[in-house]
Amino acid sequence: MAAATADERYELITRRLQEVLGGDSIKAILAEGRSPKAYWGTAPTGRPHIGYFVPLAKIADFLRADVEYRHLDVHAFLDNLKAPLELVAHRTKYYKHLLLAVFTSLGIPTSKLHFVEGSSYQLTREYNLDNYKLCATVTEHDAKKAGAEVVKQVDSALLSGLLYPGLQALDEQYLDVDFQFGGVDQRKIFTFAELYLPRLGYRKRAHLMNAMVPGLAGGKMSSSDPNSKIDFLDAPEVVRKKLKLAFCEEGNVEENGVLSFVEAVLIPISELRAARLTGDVLLEHGTGAQKPFVAAGAPEGTVFSIERDEKFGGSTHYKSFEDMKLDFAAKALHPKDLKTAVANGIIDLLAPIRKAFEENEEWQNIEKLAYPDLNAKPEKKKKKEKVYHPPPPGKGKNAKPVLDGAAAPVDGSAPEVAHAAAEAAKQQPEATS
Amino acid sequence: MAAATADERYELITRRLQEVLGGDSIKAILAEGRSPKAYWGTAPTGRPHIGYFVPLAKIADFLRADVEYRHLDVHAFLDNLKAPLELVAHRTKYYKHLLLAVFTSLGIPTSKLHFVEGSSYQLTREYNLDNYKLCATVTEHDAKKAGAEVVKQVDSALLSGLLYPGLQALDEQYLDVDFQFGGVDQRKIFTFAELYLPRLGYRKRAHLMNAMVPGLAGGKMSSSDPNSKIDFLDAPEVVRKKLKLAFCEEGNVEENGVLSFVEAVLIPISELRAARLTGDVLLEHGTGAQKPFVAAGAPEGTVFSIERDEKFGGSTHYKSFEDMKLDFAAKALHPKDLKTAVANGIIDLLAPIRKAFEENEEWQNIEKLAYPDLNAKPEKKKKKEKVYHPPPPGKGKNAKPVLDGAAAPVDGSAPEVAHAAAEAAKQQPEATS
Repeated sequence: MAAATADERYELITRRLQEVLGGDSIKAILAEGRSPKAYWGTAPTGRPHIGYFVPLAKIADFLRADVEYRHLDVHAFLDNLKAPLELVAHRTKYYKHLLLAVFTSLGIPTSKLHFVEGSSYQLTREYNLDNYKLCATVTEHDAKKAGAEVVKQVDSALLSGLLYPGLQALDEQYLDVDFQFGGVDQRKIFTFAELYLPRLGYRKRAHLMNAMVPGLAGGKMSSSDPNSKIDFLDAPEVVRKKLKLAFCEEGNVEENGVLSFVEAVLIPISELRAARLTGDVLLEHGTGAQKPFVAAGAPEGTVFSIERDEKFGGSTHYKSFEDMKLDFAAKALHPKDLKTAVANGIIDLLAPIRKAFEENEEWQNIEKLAYPDLNAKPEKKKKKEKVYHPPPPGKGKNAKPVLDGAAAPVDGSAPEVAHAAAEAAKQQPEATS
Repeated sequence: MAAATADERYELITRRLQEVLGGDSIKAILAEGRSPKAYWGTAPTGRPHIGYFVPLAKIADFLRADVEYRHLDVHAFLDNLKAPLELVAHRTKYYKHLLLAVFTSLGIPTSKLHFVEGSSYQLTREYNLDNYKLCATVTEHDAKKAGAEVVKQVDSALLSGLLYPGLQALDEQYLDVDFQFGGVDQRKIFTFAELYLPRLGYRKRAHLMNAMVPGLAGGKMSSSDPNSKIDFLDAPEVVRKKLKLAFCEEGNVEENGVLSFVEAVLIPISELRAARLTGDVLLEHGTGAQKPFVAAGAPEGTVFSIERDEKFGGSTHYKSFEDMKLDFAAKALHPKDLKTAVANGIIDLLAPIRKAFEENEEWQNIEKLAYPDLNAKPEKKKKKEKVYHPPPPGKGKNAKPVLDGAAAPVDGSAPEVAHAAAEAAKQQPEATS
């Protein structure tokens, strides 16, 4: 992609997306030979799960197309008096460690990647004045409508959920980006931004949306079921166990999170790795195997292989996701074989990330602080306090935090592009992700 | 009041109020010999009208009781994209000039009076973080309920109206006051603050409320009727004309803005002036007549006189508002005589304020900038532009702003203790004040 034309860069930026709003403005920037600036945001709340691979695989395209990319950590407004700001700060660091490890593992160049903490500008005078201006223009009805798909709709909605669309619109201006990226569930939030930013005298931004991908467990996900989430740090045996439990009905291609994960993550990454092998100069080496998910001896152009025993018909090789989907629909591809291939793929993707974690003591310490095990048993040998001889400070009372074994649900959708103020609204009892 | 006891000071602070919440905390401060700190806020929007005399007469009590008083100008958030920030800044200055002139005219000591501009702290990091914290705790339902009486209830309510109760609660903390003062229409906003400030770890404040006073026009006021408002700068003949139009039905004491104005403004100021004559050392001289609204030769203890021709029974003198009300109910006091006395009282109150305005060129200039006459006719001698000889800069095109002759409605209620963000919500078409 070194000397890619503007058209080639545009194709790379927009491929595999479900919808593009304002693509012409990106074309214009590319035509001038400039690098568009993009952003995708996350609210560092729960443990990130492998559903994050979906947007990250797309961001790989952006970076290959020489997009200047900002990753927004929205955290300052999170505090709903339940999660202390200190905890949020730890989680922000955890997310940063993790995302960097993932980008590095994929060999995505990180020099054009900027981590921006929401609090670095969201508490400034200018930003808040703009927020108040918006609040004096935006009706409750419009704010609710814009947030309908991303803010939990409950009877006793929190005000934070109503601020959400406006704050997210302002981010585009304050991050100085040309487009924002997110799942199609963000569509109303994005069109809200397109309507309101110009009313503040700011430029309307383009919006790129990828499709929603069902979770590995299929259908509606429940955060109360730890088995439905695969954590980035899950061990291979845990990944295999969770895949076994995944919903993947024979012949059913419509509601099949396992199949969708292949389309949205494994094939794009397989292609990414193939591109590197053929000499893409923008890609870096990446950590881990870096082999496309293609069996040895597969025909030219294969993007995904299912390795099978000869007695079951031998391995099959797909040149496109469509071919694979047709096979699955025709029951020529069995769920068990698909699950095995996907489990292997995920284990392959997670290996360098787990390794990076194990080699990084700082990250390990942050992990304990960010996600303390609330169910950890207190230390058993609690000393009885004696009236005249209290135990020395720091002894006897503090249970040592233990690594939280629960995994996150596999949510293939784009992670919340969320202001955490709104995030709080989403974290009410009924919240599902 | 120089050596007033704690009990006497408390009596002065709370007299004539309709309701006091948290009075014990004020008593405790007084018992320690300290000066409680109070605040009352206004949003500098429309032209202030003489309804402002109602809270100002009460604030005179606070200052006499040695209360440290903060006057909050809320303005930074006003901009609903209709009123440019520049205009708001001018109006803030206009309000300050006016309020100082009124306090000075009343002889209220202004050394313990502080004007605070909302924007001086409402755009800081800390304040906004607290605001976001609140928004992540306060439900839409509770915010709406709290603002029900002060925020215009419309179908397409603006978000600003929902932020209002929280912002007003935070003001108490950031202004570092012990109590907030307002009309009873603020009750729900006040109890909201009492509930939510402690949830942020802040101290609950006391709340002092005066009764709502009907407008001089009686019943519901309409801002579309300029005759129903008396401006602080109205000339005597304008005041008399407007009083003639005021609703003041013979024998009707229930819905009588003229009578209410006597109770809430003229008698308190009459007593204030009498106190000064008897040597209240805390009061200053004041500008203007400074004579109680009591006729020469009235019996000791008179607080208000109605001067009448002998042929109509001669002057009557009231020692209390209750006596006067009984007389009016019994039709022993005729509306025409009452209106004449009230017009004279208002003219007397306005004289020093008009004089201060006429002597203060800066204030006059601010007035033109703050309230430009939108209906002013363009200058007639507009030069025709010639292609090669345009007029010199600043000539020929700019209509000179003319003093806006329209008066404000007489709203005896406490002026909006308002965040202007919310103010914007109140300024929708249906707004009445």
